[in-house]
Amino acid sequence: METTLDFIKSRRSTRKYKTEDVSEEQLNQIIEAGRFAPSGGNCQSTHFIVVKNKEILAELANLTQQEFAGMEITPGLYKSIVNSINLSKKGNYVFHYNAPVLIITANQKDYGNNIADCSCALENMMLMANALNLGSCWINQLKWLNENPVILEYMKKLGMDENERVYGALAVGHPDTADGLPVREPLKRTGNKVTVVE
Amino acid sequence: METTLDFIKSRRSTRKYKTEDVSEEQLNQIIEAGRFAPSGGNCQSTHFIVVKNKEILAELANLTQQEFAGMEITPGLYKSIVNSINLSKKGNYVFHYNAPVLIITANQKDYGNNIADCSCALENMMLMANALNLGSCWINQLKWLNENPVILEYMKKLGMDENERVYGALAVGHPDTADGLPVREPLKRTGNKVTVVE
Repeated sequence: METTLDFIKSRRSTRKYKTEDVSEEQLNQIIEAGRFAPSGGNCQSTHFIVVKNKEILAELANLTQQEFAGMEITPGLYKSIVNSINLSKKGNYVFHYNAPVLIITANQKDYGNNIADCSCALENMMLMANALNLGSCWINQLKWLNENPVILEYMKKLGMDENERVYGALAVGHPDTADGLPVREPLKRTGNKVTVVE
Repeated sequence: METTLDFIKSRRSTRKYKTEDVSEEQLNQIIEAGRFAPSGGNCQSTHFIVVKNKEILAELANLTQQEFAGMEITPGLYKSIVNSINLSKKGNYVFHYNAPVLIITANQKDYGNNIADCSCALENMMLMANALNLGSCWINQLKWLNENPVILEYMKKLGMDENERVYGALAVGHPDTADGLPVREPLKRTGNKVTVVE
């Protein structure tokens, strides 16, 4: 019980990874954690596309940069997308922090809980990675570009179905820290307002 | 490590609760778990509206039924919404399984990660409830009705800000089972396809 809250509170985003691979056993536990997330009406339609191939990861990074570089900045665009476009135009965009594994979560595009279900699965996987002393980081670019024809076509080549779209992804790997463990100091919560109605 | 995967895998939805209240300490741990979920750009904009007041919970249930009862079933409408409308028209709609607490997660309506951030927070809270031997269940109705003027007005009375909308909620309470513990037998995962790209 204390352990669960500890692992929940100590989860942090890891943005620097060693080249060392994640073991098959650890990866299976992370995916298992994701698969056991709840889903609307227990439909279990989240599709986990686990990319371990280095060339494909590099190609995904290149395509993402290429597509962002071709985009225009319009008023009201989310600041992180603006940032991605600007960095991509300069050719130094960081996609997945060179993590050895990227777990992409896709779901049915016409299903109202697609983002919610994928997010619960991603959260479970982040916690599981943390419990295994692995680092992880939510990668949102493929979600932002999930209707981009080039990315869509590439995702289909990787096994995504016609009616599916990407709603999030997770970089996973060994943290490149002095002790090899994830940064665990929890960030302060100054936001996340709580209103109690008693 | 094993504990974390155990709690993740054994989490189930609880749909029958005792009238017994959740202790202040347990509720604080659950909310704390939710607040420590990640957010886009660490914006921490998820707003937790914790409803413990029985009259207000009953009123929310009544308003939800009233609003669903006034809706028409249109082609392509999600089956659970169709179900909610049909049951509400008959006057026997179950909103939150009479749980003693409902934690509503709201977020900025113009923020692209609103659903994702609320979902991660909800998943953390479900896991924490499970670790505390409490039951929980995702309640989606206030999300479906989050632009309904009657529900919107009521949510504002409960403390939701002008620019916020509801993106999910969680019923929490003591499970009404023989041993008082949550049902923990994990549901089989026959869906949740995994595609490995090696």
